[in-house]
Amino acid sequence: MFAGAPSLLTDHYELTMISAALRDGTAHRRSVFEVFARRLPVGRRYGVVAGTGRLLELLAAFRFHPDEVAFLRDRGVVDEQTAAWLADYRFQGDLDGYAEGELFFPGSPIMTVSGTFAECVVLETLILSVLNHDCAIAAAAARMVTAARGRPLIEMGSRRAHEEAAVASARAAYLAGFASTSNLAAGLRYGIPTAGTAAHAFTLLHDDEKAAFASQVAALGEQTTLLVDTYDISQGIRNAIAVAGPGLRAVRIDSGDLSVLAAQSRALLDELGAPDVKIVVSGDLDEYAIAALAAEPVDVYGAGTAVVTGSGAPTAGLVYKLVEVDGRPVVKRSENKATIGGRKTAYRRHKPTGTAVEEIVLSQQATPPAQPGDRLLQRPFVRGGELVADLPTLADSRAHLRDCLITIPWEGLKLSAGDPAVHVTVTTVGPR
Amino acid sequence: MFAGAPSLLTDHYELTMISAALRDGTAHRRSVFEVFARRLPVGRRYGVVAGTGRLLELLAAFRFHPDEVAFLRDRGVVDEQTAAWLADYRFQGDLDGYAEGELFFPGSPIMTVSGTFAECVVLETLILSVLNHDCAIAAAAARMVTAARGRPLIEMGSRRAHEEAAVASARAAYLAGFASTSNLAAGLRYGIPTAGTAAHAFTLLHDDEKAAFASQVAALGEQTTLLVDTYDISQGIRNAIAVAGPGLRAVRIDSGDLSVLAAQSRALLDELGAPDVKIVVSGDLDEYAIAALAAEPVDVYGAGTAVVTGSGAPTAGLVYKLVEVDGRPVVKRSENKATIGGRKTAYRRHKPTGTAVEEIVLSQQATPPAQPGDRLLQRPFVRGGELVADLPTLADSRAHLRDCLITIPWEGLKLSAGDPAVHVTVTTVGPR
Repeated sequence: MFAGAPSLLTDHYELTMISAALRDGTAHRRSVFEVFARRLPVGRRYGVVAGTGRLLELLAAFRFHPDEVAFLRDRGVVDEQTAAWLADYRFQGDLDGYAEGELFFPGSPIMTVSGTFAECVVLETLILSVLNHDCAIAAAAARMVTAARGRPLIEMGSRRAHEEAAVASARAAYLAGFASTSNLAAGLRYGIPTAGTAAHAFTLLHDDEKAAFASQVAALGEQTTLLVDTYDISQGIRNAIAVAGPGLRAVRIDSGDLSVLAAQSRALLDELGAPDVKIVVSGDLDEYAIAALAAEPVDVYGAGTAVVTGSGAPTAGLVYKLVEVDGRPVVKRSENKATIGGRKTAYRRHKPTGTAVEEIVLSQQATPPAQPGDRLLQRPFVRGGELVADLPTLADSRAHLRDCLITIPWEGLKLSAGDPAVHVTVTTVGPR
Repeated sequence: MFAGAPSLLTDHYELTMISAALRDGTAHRRSVFEVFARRLPVGRRYGVVAGTGRLLELLAAFRFHPDEVAFLRDRGVVDEQTAAWLADYRFQGDLDGYAEGELFFPGSPIMTVSGTFAECVVLETLILSVLNHDCAIAAAAARMVTAARGRPLIEMGSRRAHEEAAVASARAAYLAGFASTSNLAAGLRYGIPTAGTAAHAFTLLHDDEKAAFASQVAALGEQTTLLVDTYDISQGIRNAIAVAGPGLRAVRIDSGDLSVLAAQSRALLDELGAPDVKIVVSGDLDEYAIAALAAEPVDVYGAGTAVVTGSGAPTAGLVYKLVEVDGRPVVKRSENKATIGGRKTAYRRHKPTGTAVEEIVLSQQATPPAQPGDRLLQRPFVRGGELVADLPTLADSRAHLRDCLITIPWEGLKLSAGDPAVHVTVTTVGPR
């Protein structure tokens, strides 16, 4: 199924606004839009920037094809002038932002888009779709990684999400520290390790459980994971060891009270002389269920529904706001007074120990006063419509998040509901 | 961004199971898989089948391209025999199911996939991804349509969802009775009416609000909707009428206490001699917020985040289970005793008044006893790998849901938490 170019993944009103602005000339005003969250999902202590790499690929393909322009004109969405403008469209502005894998907090300007009003506003929907989804998944996944305390996690939620969102979710979960994904497209597109065990259907297909296990081991070798809970778990484990021997990689348990079953299964495996066989658990695991298994002899967690749905927060609440027109800060007056117009510069201040103490966001000031331990948070991604060289890889972003999570105050890693771990101070410094 | 063929939107283990089953010969056993939900999201009274049309398009393109097969072989996911099988793959089995727009309840067998084990199991992930997503959105959207009591709803949540999930969400919301969507790709792909107003950025771009309104009206005519809450709402309405006159189509309010503001805005519009100007409200509306505005002078609702995230239930909880192998019912023994193997036939029983009283699901019995008012729920979609003729259109499915919602007991339409509106009885009838 060809999904088409990304340009129509856009709200109707972006194009009608452009129509009007092209007629009155304001379409060409130099504009700055910023992406930020007014708040984190209830109780969350940090957000995770994710999706930037995916977005930059989509932006590079963001063109209006002739049949799309014809559709828009025929439907009366745009006039002739706008149709011609769309046909020639390519983004020629600048794009800056927090690195993928960076943390963010309410008010952090995680992306800044500069150019003419028209060329920037047309990107609003796509930028927000990608970032709102991927940041939501990455934030949930990062909490699961913390809860797993170094034990590997497999992302296996593809079937619970839209088929393309599933691929993006696998990428975001890997960025957040998951070891692998079940999603093969994510393996092909992003080079993420893929993993899998077997489904209950495979056991049911066979005449009995031992036949199913023998078939799997014959095909995949003993370095495979046998699913032992189709009938009786204890008998399943006995069958697994009888068939595969103590060199089997792992057994998986997908149902029942996992904390009780993990301990019983470990004891049984040890008793059967199979102390090196690992235990994989799955079945509606979220960060809390994972944390609750910390003391049990679990080796690998499989997480599905909770990770691909953001564990209660399926969208990140990011908005895309016009903050500057022709060098003049602009702001919606009916908003909270804390909102400040103008292009922002953001840096994070750290103690000598490396712990982050504050994020400082300055309006209309290019060069913030630097103290030792300050780190500028924004980087260039696009200049004059062209991707800058040496953009980070997914592996870089994964390492970056790991490093960032070390810097936040220790309460920030708690799973319980709380305030954002780092306060963002947005101020106006310098001439207005 | 070319998303590729849908075949790799698949879990790793589907292909390793096929590898093992091809080696031992079980891959060719005649198998029946069923899609059903064990439960509805907490408190929901019905589910809505959605995504079938989208799924059938994806299935028609479900092929493994040479570079995908090479990837799977190089990564060691499949062996040579399986690689050859994948290269030749096309589904040649049968697919039956509930019509799109049909209601479902826990235990309803909404889709049945029959063929060899291998050709059916490889479709599991994609089938569940499409149905779990689209059914979740349609169910939330249907509740909003009920809450809106005949007033039109615009789906405007694209920016809060993965960019492709957004298009599917627009389709599911339209199926559920929304009047239109902001998503242009949904307009192009599915012929759904698109709609839009303007963003605050458009007002901020201009030197003042009147200039912005005049520009919009000059470009789009008076049959447009002006966004009046960028600065002061009362002044915004005065400016709108001063610029556009009483022939303006509508004003939109996107913030504040909508029930108070709708009433004040209506009074002001009437006072300004503009009684025909409609009021569009938006801003974090879910089914409850919509219901709470029933008594206010609101003409159109715009719903975003809540609809595209399933209003608290972002996935439908559907599973894909092997129920029959070579004519023999199979069932995972550790499950709830209520689970019954074997291919099912489903019909819904109605009172003479047309109200549904029960859904009856028979295992292993092709022809259920018919009473007046019984309606068979499953239809053929694919026979021998080919789509059947005359599949319903999206408009048909939309009408079907509207008709179905009339048949459920009146409590079923309540927004409050409750039990499923129709009980499903799954029984074994006839020879086992």
